[in-house]
Amino acid sequence: MSPSGTVGKPIRCRAAVGREPGAPLVIEEVVVAPPMPYEVRIRIICASLCHSDITFWKMKDPPGYFPRIFGHEAVGVVESVGENVDEVSAGDVVIPTFMSDCGDCADCKSSKSNLCSKLPFKLSPWMPRYETSRFTDIKGEPLFHFLFVSSFTEYTVVDIAHVVKIDPTAPPNKACLLGCGVSTGVGAAWRTANVEAESTVAIFGLGSIGLAVAEGARLCGATRIIGVDVNPRKFEIGKKFGVTDFVDAGKSGGKSLGQLIKDMTGGGADYCFECVGMSSLVEEAYAGCRKGWGKTVVLGVDRPGAQLSLNSSEVLHSGKSLMGSLFGGLKAKSDIPILLKQYMDKELQLDEFVTHEVNFEDINKAFELLLEGKSLRCVIWMRK
Amino acid sequence: MSPSGTVGKPIRCRAAVGREPGAPLVIEEVVVAPPMPYEVRIRIICASLCHSDITFWKMKDPPGYFPRIFGHEAVGVVESVGENVDEVSAGDVVIPTFMSDCGDCADCKSSKSNLCSKLPFKLSPWMPRYETSRFTDIKGEPLFHFLFVSSFTEYTVVDIAHVVKIDPTAPPNKACLLGCGVSTGVGAAWRTANVEAESTVAIFGLGSIGLAVAEGARLCGATRIIGVDVNPRKFEIGKKFGVTDFVDAGKSGGKSLGQLIKDMTGGGADYCFECVGMSSLVEEAYAGCRKGWGKTVVLGVDRPGAQLSLNSSEVLHSGKSLMGSLFGGLKAKSDIPILLKQYMDKELQLDEFVTHEVNFEDINKAFELLLEGKSLRCVIWMRK
Repeated sequence: MSPSGTVGKPIRCRAAVGREPGAPLVIEEVVVAPPMPYEVRIRIICASLCHSDITFWKMKDPPGYFPRIFGHEAVGVVESVGENVDEVSAGDVVIPTFMSDCGDCADCKSSKSNLCSKLPFKLSPWMPRYETSRFTDIKGEPLFHFLFVSSFTEYTVVDIAHVVKIDPTAPPNKACLLGCGVSTGVGAAWRTANVEAESTVAIFGLGSIGLAVAEGARLCGATRIIGVDVNPRKFEIGKKFGVTDFVDAGKSGGKSLGQLIKDMTGGGADYCFECVGMSSLVEEAYAGCRKGWGKTVVLGVDRPGAQLSLNSSEVLHSGKSLMGSLFGGLKAKSDIPILLKQYMDKELQLDEFVTHEVNFEDINKAFELLLEGKSLRCVIWMRK
Repeated sequence: MSPSGTVGKPIRCRAAVGREPGAPLVIEEVVVAPPMPYEVRIRIICASLCHSDITFWKMKDPPGYFPRIFGHEAVGVVESVGENVDEVSAGDVVIPTFMSDCGDCADCKSSKSNLCSKLPFKLSPWMPRYETSRFTDIKGEPLFHFLFVSSFTEYTVVDIAHVVKIDPTAPPNKACLLGCGVSTGVGAAWRTANVEAESTVAIFGLGSIGLAVAEGARLCGATRIIGVDVNPRKFEIGKKFGVTDFVDAGKSGGKSLGQLIKDMTGGGADYCFECVGMSSLVEEAYAGCRKGWGKTVVLGVDRPGAQLSLNSSEVLHSGKSLMGSLFGGLKAKSDIPILLKQYMDKELQLDEFVTHEVNFEDINKAFELLLEGKSLRCVIWMRK
């Protein structure tokens, strides 16, 4: 299927469709409409599975929607572009991202924000600009999009604000990790917290995000990186990413985790990152931060409506700060290429996150591995 | 009473003693012991009344203690120094401060913290270093200290870590304001929030602290300063300190204050300051902050144990940050002289805060004026 033959026409291809919450994805033929103005149609080279895919795949009620094409980490090649797209053209290698970066709004123009106002992040099942789908099944029924990316398909359509052009020589099975999880963790240390050299960092939860925070903190020159997890095996994995100390959250000996971190560090960590998504753990992270300058960064996604409770007097008197980090505070179009260059220069570690690779036909295996806690990132190759 | 005649001896002088919670202070003779090592005995020139004096004067249970000498904003002259004090000597003009600045600990050496670890801030009724009192009444009964300053007395003893040497040509009835309230507000804008030029600021509560935040924001070049208060007369006062817009908190028309600020600013203020001491208002301030970069700074003192509740998802997704500000993030010894110089250079406004002046004998009048909401700062002259 040559690019010239498909431009402006629907493409019939294979996609892994989530038909029911929690049920194996079904590889089926789908129809991918041509890109609308400001949109890009992308041939996916490979994708990787992130925990958010699992979260929404399990979800029975909105913002869970079915049938849906999941996936939001990928590398692909531009097949064709809609009107008003000058930034990329057919043949460019790109990473589609769930975070938009329009370049025009007050946020995209400011160095202080990565929260595009023009196409703001939301849990929509549609394309961001027109609130419609480019996917239909062979019966003509529309299929829902996922996080503005939908990468578990041979072809997808993504808004130009969600497309990052990258170095075409980068290995796609590593570069795809920069689309969400690893960038989020590394960015949280680098951009959101701006971790200083020689500092002490505590990370609550050593999943992929937490490990990526460790990697980011290591790159920033943190000298002590404390991992906190209920699974002691995570310490061995964590060491690859700079984790120097481990706290077994299941064996705290009656002490609160915040107090444990304070005791270990003689007053608290300079930076605490919550990567699990439990408000109670954010409170422990806040408690475990050094008075005077400690920063607590929230990365974990708690259940909708969850409230975070802090002691008012401690907030006032402690000199600590609390902040969230969506996509690690990164601006997709400018920061992803920086991280990719750091990988190409052998500074940033990505290889160590890829624990498994499967062919597209075996995509449900990727889900099993992550559900069983056996993988960090499983790469899914569209064609091998 | 010449300095040489009193050195090393107890001084008998007048003090305003709080004998009972909420009852008028009693001007009586007290005995002020000589300074211990690392302490300084100071002859007070004038003091000013801050709202925290009132709070603790009303307090029936600890951390309320009686009999006690209140007051923590003042200018005085060093009468004598204890052993190991080289930093000041007899005759130096000083501001005593409730915040210590030892210069030696990790916090004092860091540019990021103003929370001295050696003599940490706490609500103690004693001297900070030895946990004893230098005051006794004429019956020989000890009198409690207040916030390590106790300035409503002709003589007091203060730890050297709490003493700031100042320009002796500064008018004492203006300089004394820098000991607590005005510095806290100005510092919160300048040091804690680091307000950028051209930015928008919202201030919840236009008491002295809130007005000082406005003054600090004005000095930082904020172009829009929104005051929020239940008393519309505060807008007229606020205009003197740069307040450009006013929200009558009692007439919000069913809208939350956070939403009102968002509507007025097209998305939220760049900085929100809570200067009342109500957790619910901190939540409104947080809601009224601009996504992407908004900072919420807590200055108000809520009741002990009060909890602050934030929506976990908003913390994660909004890119906002929350921080407290004790003494405006200022380092007493280095920052108070900077503020005083700004006043002497006619940049920082202090005169406008001084609404009343009384002689020491009329100190209870100062309490009445503040309780009735008629004064911002009432200066109390020891000898006129």
